[in-house]
Order: sequence, then C-alpha cells, then structure tokens
Amino acid sequence: MKEQRKRYLLDEEEIPRYWYNIQAEMPNKPLPPLNPATKKPLTAEELYPVFAEECCRQELNQTDAWIKIPDEVRDKYKYYRSTPLVRAYGLEKALGTPAHIYFKNESVSPMGSHKLNSAIPQAYYCQQEGVTNVTTETGAGQWGASLAYAASMYGLESAVYQVKISYEQKPYRRSIMQTFGAQVTPSPSMSTRAGKDILTAHPNYQGSLGTAISEAVELARTTPNCKYCLGSVLNHVALHQTVIGLEAEKQMEMAGEYPDVVVACFGGGSNFGGISFPFMRHKIAGQPGKDHTRFVAAEPSSCPKLTRGEFRYDFGDEAGYTPLLPMYTLGHNFSPANIHAGGLRYHGAGVIVSQLLKDGLMEAVDIPQLESFEAGTLFARAEGIIPAPESCHAIAATIREALACKETGEEKVILFNLSGHGLIDMSSYDKFLAGDLQNYSLPDSVIASNIASTDPLQPESLL
Amino acid sequence: MKEQRKRYLLDEEEIPRYWYNIQAEMPNKPLPPLNPATKKPLTAEELYPVFAEECCRQELNQTDAWIKIPDEVRDKYKYYRSTPLVRAYGLEKALGTPAHIYFKNESVSPMGSHKLNSAIPQAYYCQQEGVTNVTTETGAGQWGASLAYAASMYGLESAVYQVKISYEQKPYRRSIMQTFGAQVTPSPSMSTRAGKDILTAHPNYQGSLGTAISEAVELARTTPNCKYCLGSVLNHVALHQTVIGLEAEKQMEMAGEYPDVVVACFGGGSNFGGISFPFMRHKIAGQPGKDHTRFVAAEPSSCPKLTRGEFRYDFGDEAGYTPLLPMYTLGHNFSPANIHAGGLRYHGAGVIVSQLLKDGLMEAVDIPQLESFEAGTLFARAEGIIPAPESCHAIAATIREALACKETGEEKVILFNLSGHGLIDMSSYDKFLAGDLQNYSLPDSVIASNIASTDPLQPESLL
Repeated sequence: MKEQRKRYLLDEEEIPRYWYNIQAEMPNKPLPPLNPATKKPLTAEELYPVFAEECCRQELNQTDAWIKIPDEVRDKYKYYRSTPLVRAYGLEKALGTPAHIYFKNESVSPMGSHKLNSAIPQAYYCQQEGVTNVTTETGAGQWGASLAYAASMYGLESAVYQVKISYEQKPYRRSIMQTFGAQVTPSPSMSTRAGKDILTAHPNYQGSLGTAISEAVELARTTPNCKYCLGSVLNHVALHQTVIGLEAEKQMEMAGEYPDVVVACFGGGSNFGGISFPFMRHKIAGQPGKDHTRFVAAEPSSCPKLTRGEFRYDFGDEAGYTPLLPMYTLGHNFSPANIHAGGLRYHGAGVIVSQLLKDGLMEAVDIPQLESFEAGTLFARAEGIIPAPESCHAIAATIREALACKETGEEKVILFNLSGHGLIDMSSYDKFLAGDLQNYSLPDSVIASNIASTDPLQPESLL
Repeated sequence: MKEQRKRYLLDEEEIPRYWYNIQAEMPNKPLPPLNPATKKPLTAEELYPVFAEECCRQELNQTDAWIKIPDEVRDKYKYYRSTPLVRAYGLEKALGTPAHIYFKNESVSPMGSHKLNSAIPQAYYCQQEGVTNVTTETGAGQWGASLAYAASMYGLESAVYQVKISYEQKPYRRSIMQTFGAQVTPSPSMSTRAGKDILTAHPNYQGSLGTAISEAVELARTTPNCKYCLGSVLNHVALHQTVIGLEAEKQMEMAGEYPDVVVACFGGGSNFGGISFPFMRHKIAGQPGKDHTRFVAAEPSSCPKLTRGEFRYDFGDEAGYTPLLPMYTLGHNFSPANIHAGGLRYHGAGVIVSQLLKDGLMEAVDIPQLESFEAGTLFARAEGIIPAPESCHAIAATIREALACKETGEEKVILFNLSGHGLIDMSSYDKFLAGDLQNYSLPDSVIASNIASTDPLQPESLL
C-alpha cells in the first residue's frame, strides 16, 4: 500500500506572527460605519466605550495589511494551534469525485470551534486596558464558551447572553460556560431594556443573535469597567480569524497544492473571512496561478442575507444600539427560523464581506437545513468527525462542488473550513436521524417587507 | 517574553509502525487464562469463536516484544495521530509547583478518547477475517462510539450494549453511535439470557460493564458471523494502546525530558498500559536514568480493585461467560456505585497490569469522586480542556504528585494521559458545580463478602 499523507501540521515557530488585514488591500474599501445620531463616519474613539480600544483601532484600520499578534496571544494560540489541514480521502471516496478535498480542522480547539482565535485577543486587550468585566452574546454557545474560557484565562468576569432557543437546545454549552465561571442568561431576558421590550411585544420569542447582541451591548454600556466582545461580523474579529487561512496557506504548500475553491459557512463572516482573506490577497494582487480561486460562502436558506438580502446601511443588533453598518441584510429585526445551526441565525453580513460580495470577489450559496445534515452525516461516516450544524453548511457546499467535478472530471482542489465539531449538538443529529427536522421556505415578500419595516435613518440608539 | 514550547507533535512518518508487547519482556509472565470447564490454560483457538483470530493470538503472545501495526490500520491512525504531548504550564502555575507536568492529549481523537486506537485494529481484523457483525459493551460510551465508527469504516454492522446508567446520563454518546449506524441497547436488557437473569433478580439494576460484557458476548456467541470486541482489560487491547506511550516517548525526547512519574486513570487498564508499558520497558531492562520511573494507576475509591481487591482467578464479566483471568478483582458480580466516570466502573484489572502490580513494578491510588471533579475543574480553567470524568482521576493523582513536589521543592517530570475530553459529560459537571455529587464509602466487609460470594471454580460458562 502506498503511503498517503493525511494531515499537515505546522511547528509552533510557524504559527503566524501577524494577522492579515484585508481592508488595507481591497480594491474598494468598505464604506464607513456611521454614527446613527450624526450620520457621520464613526471614529475609533466613538467605539471605545463599547469595545477594547485596540479592537476599535483595528476595526477601522484601512492602512496596515499586517497587524502583529501580541506575543502573549500567540503563546495562548500554542495551546491548540496549529490546527491540522486534513486531506479528506474518506469523503472523496464516498463521493467518487476526482476533486482533492482538504479541510482545515478548527474543531480541535479545546472549545470545539474556531471562535477561540478571536476570544483570546479580545480578552487580552481588555485585560491590558484595565477592564475587569466582559460581556457578549452567543448562539449555539461556541463563541460564549470561548469567551468564557479566554476571560477566565485573563482573570476577567464574564456574562453571556445566549439565544434562548440554543440555551434550551444545547444545555451542555451553557454548562461549559459555567465551568469557566461565566454568568449565562437566556436571551431575550428581563435584565435589559432591549430584552424587556421584545418580550413584552412577543412573550414567546425564541431569541436571535441580534437581540442577544443588544442585551450584551446594553449591559456593557450600563456597567462600570465592562466591555463588550463580539464573536463575528466586525472587521477586527475577522482579522483575528485570519490565523486560520494563514496557517492553511503554509499547509497547502506542504501538500503541494493551491485551492481552486475555498468554502466556509457563513453567519456573520468571521470563519469565512478567516480562511478566505489570506488566499484572496493573491487574487486581489492578480498573482499568476493564484488569481482564479473562487470563494464560496455557505449560508442557511432560512437566513439568506448574502443570496437574497439587500446591501444597505443597517444596525448590527435588533434594538439598534450599534453603529450603522454597510452590509447585506435581511433587516436588523429579522427573526430567523429555529434551525439548529444557531451560529448562522444572524440577519446581516460583516462590512468587508459585504463589499467583497458586491465587488464579485466572492460568491454565496444557500443550503437548506436537511441538505446540511445529510452532508454532515456523510462526512461523519467518511472522516470520523461529527461536524457542527454550522459547519455542515460548508460541507454541503463542498459536496456540491465536488459532485460538479465528478460530472466534468476536473481534479479541482477544494478547501473548506471545518469551523467546529458537533459533539454538543447531538440532539440535532438525533432529530435529523429520526426524520424530525425540516426545511423552511422564505417568500420574497417576507424578506422585502421585513427590510422595508426597518428604518435605519431614524433609529433609537445609545451610541 | 521568552518563547516556551507548549505542544509536541510527530510527523506522520514518526507514527509507530509496531505496537509494544510487554508480555514478552515481563520478569514474571502473567498466569495463563483458564478454560473454566477444564481449568486448563486456554489456547488461542478456544477464543476464536468470540474474538477476531488475530486478536486471540496477540492475547496469548508472550514471545514477540514488537508486533507490526498493519499498514491499513496505521493509515487510519493518521486521521488523528500523532496526538499532542502538551506541557501543562497553566496547571503548573495554578498549583505553584516546581514539577514539570506533561500530558498526552488523546482527547483530540475524533471520538474524543483513546479508545479508537484499539477499535480500528479490532474492526480491521474482523473485516479481514470475513466477519460481518461486531458487538460490544460500553460504559460512558467512548468505547462504543469508537467501535461504531471503526465498524462503519470497514463496512461492518455493530451492536452496542451500553450500561444503563450511562445510557441515561449521557444520551449524546448514544446519538453518536447511532450516527455511525450502530444499534444501541441499554444493559441489562431483555434481549439476552444474561440480561434477563439479572433484571429478574434486580429489576432496577442500573447496569455495570461486567453485565454489558456478558450480554455482548452472548450475542456474539449466538449470532452467525458475529465477533465480540472488548474495549479494555485484555492484553491485545492494551497492546494496541501502546501507540500512546510510544509516541509520548519520542515527544518527551523532543522536550528533552524523561518522566519520573507516569500517571493514568484505571478502568480495565488499557489507557494505563498504553501510556505506561513503553516507558516501563526501560525500567524492566534496568536502563540507567530510566529505571527509576514510578507508574501510578488512579482508580475511583468506589471501585478499588487495585488498592483493595484480591489477586485471584475470576471472570471478566458478570454472568461468567469469559475465561477465568488471573486478576485483581472485587468479584465479578461487584456492583459499583453510580459514579459519573462510567468507564472506570469495572470489577477487575487486566492480567498484565495485575501481575505488574503484584511484582511492584507499578502502584495504585484511589480517588474519591469529589476530588476527581475538583481536579478536572481546576485543569479545565488552567488548560482550557474539559476532561472526561475518567481522566479527572489521572489529573487528581497528578496534582497529588505535583503538590508533593511543591512540599519538597523537587522538579519532578510528571506525565499523565488525558484519555478523553468531557464535552459529552457536561451534565456531570453541572451536578458537581451545583454540589449534587457525593463520595461513596465502601466498607471492607462489603468487598470481602462480595469476593467470597463468587465461586470462580464452579462457573456457568458458555465457553
């Protein structure tokens, strides 16, 4: 039997020392976030009351393509990085495809997903700046668990608002957060004005990321020495996640290949940006042999901001506490169906990705829930890793690409990001195997009227 | 900040090509297993009806110190091996110990524990020998999940008897097995004579590994073309697990250190043997600088066969279907308390380990349940990995050693095996954090009368 190389790992010295800031090299820079009160472009200083100051500067940095990873952060990355780049021989065989499928396995992070890559620097900057408390939202709980751990690592108190549907579907993630000492509250809650308002209007509301963000931002604004940390959407979060793609680039080199297609699931854009941006820089630079790569974001059909949303200024949260962001959106009060991929139930896309999609540098597909779990189950049996419901969307999109190669006979190289494992989401697989999951249809009229019902120019805002 | 190396990984070429068979080099060979009908030493052929034939030969092989890992098995090891050797800087700091603590992180296996190391070869040998169905027992579900995955990998049907208390405490593990297509039955069940007998006598019996083994063995014996696979206890299982220690030895070399103490939790002995035996061979050989290492097995106080059991011939299962094994035992019908470390709820120790303990080549400690979870929680906060309740016992024993070093100021090198993660055991942590877990006392009289009540010389046996 000829020996085949299955996994590629980097030595600790090879873990990146800089994150890649694609903002500095985009052909069209993102439009600026606006202060909703003044409609003027936001300054970093205006964001200081909410986020760690260094994160605010990174957020608006359109100049420096490379931003140094603090040594202390890189030292914590060593706890689980590099993550493996894996050749999915098992999946290739199951599909009978000539494509070469690789995945970057972020599920080996101790918290089970890529989220720790940004939780660590955010907690670190907070601690450096003298902050004592952090707060955040979480959907499926992967971000909340990561921030809870990172906070405990740096001696910070943490409070997490978890989307109520996930709080109930995934009790183990709540337990993980509590093991790290976090306060966990199901959202919407009665502990904030934003939560009370929506509960009063809709007593049985199951929550959304947009609402949980409102609650966490409100807590941060009303608590001394407390900052808010976001798990996706914003530029600095995607920046931190570029450690994924930068590692993957070196590992693909070890494999002697370069991706023709890069795929990731899409919630707010941080895992997509994390794996894509380092490869996309060669496309932007027009580098021969590396300028043809396609970048595919896989979003759920029930929350299709990239494929069916509108590009406009909108709020990042349900209550309208955040700056106005230029994004593809379904309207900031969009209430997504209760799919099990809780991390993808978000109404908008980050501003960088939105601009890249507008400029045709990337594309998007939408995946129905059942197709996502079919793909995830096939992958589990072929590769032995049970993927998170979110990651199942990336796998489904990868399978579509691989089956297209089977039709044409092309040996394309497909790279996807396995953003997390699904070991804590087994109740979702239970329901899928029992035939109890469904797809959700979403008429154009619902999307259109939801977008029309929001008025980003007359928002109530705390900023 | 001075850069510190955190994790050590081996290249795929460095993954071992041979397992280490300590039987060939033990100063006193283990006593032979006996056929309970004839009281004569068992031959490999007599085991063929139950196990894969190659496993039977490995079981009784006292000649060959090195046994080749089939290329096809080694190729599957590449899916997750090498596993990292990690310097536990975080734990050292939390304890304020001068000891250097390392752990081998088997929790990164896609099934979350070391069990896959033996599931893969067992399923492989079955498939090579034309077997179509495999069956087994499982406690917490880590072995069952691993065998279910390995079986699906080789196109075999699998049926798993899961100890009822774990079936109910840890539903996600059942879901994982089902995702890989396994039939999962809570044990004791009404589907076997062994299960019926015990349910008739004790209708509310919560099950034990011994009972589940009886049910699985009975199924294998009464089903055409079906073999039984065991997850621990037997020599060939510990043999397969030596891949852990063989990797760890190379990785400790990379770190420039050699362990003074090697620690592992103890259920049947496979993870203990897996990490220990490769190091113990140098102690047996009296190699200078490597002959002083202490080997510490950490068992639960509520199931203390090593520290308080009797060395004698006993059955490996509750119903008395297996050969008679020379082992430290609490009596094959011992019913352990319902601790959350389901994988350690077994009445006996494997024959190799039993002989080594008798010969003073290793030692054992018993850990109360609360101490195990205190240790696990401390480790989680320090290293970011939530350990399996089983592995918490190894951590507790490690902490005892590290705190002793703090007393004496010794810079001992301690290596323990992190056999699995606890992400699927969060309900146990929930109960611990809520103060709902307890220790269990076990009077000497209970142990003595339980051992006395079993009569291994007049057993009912299918063999």
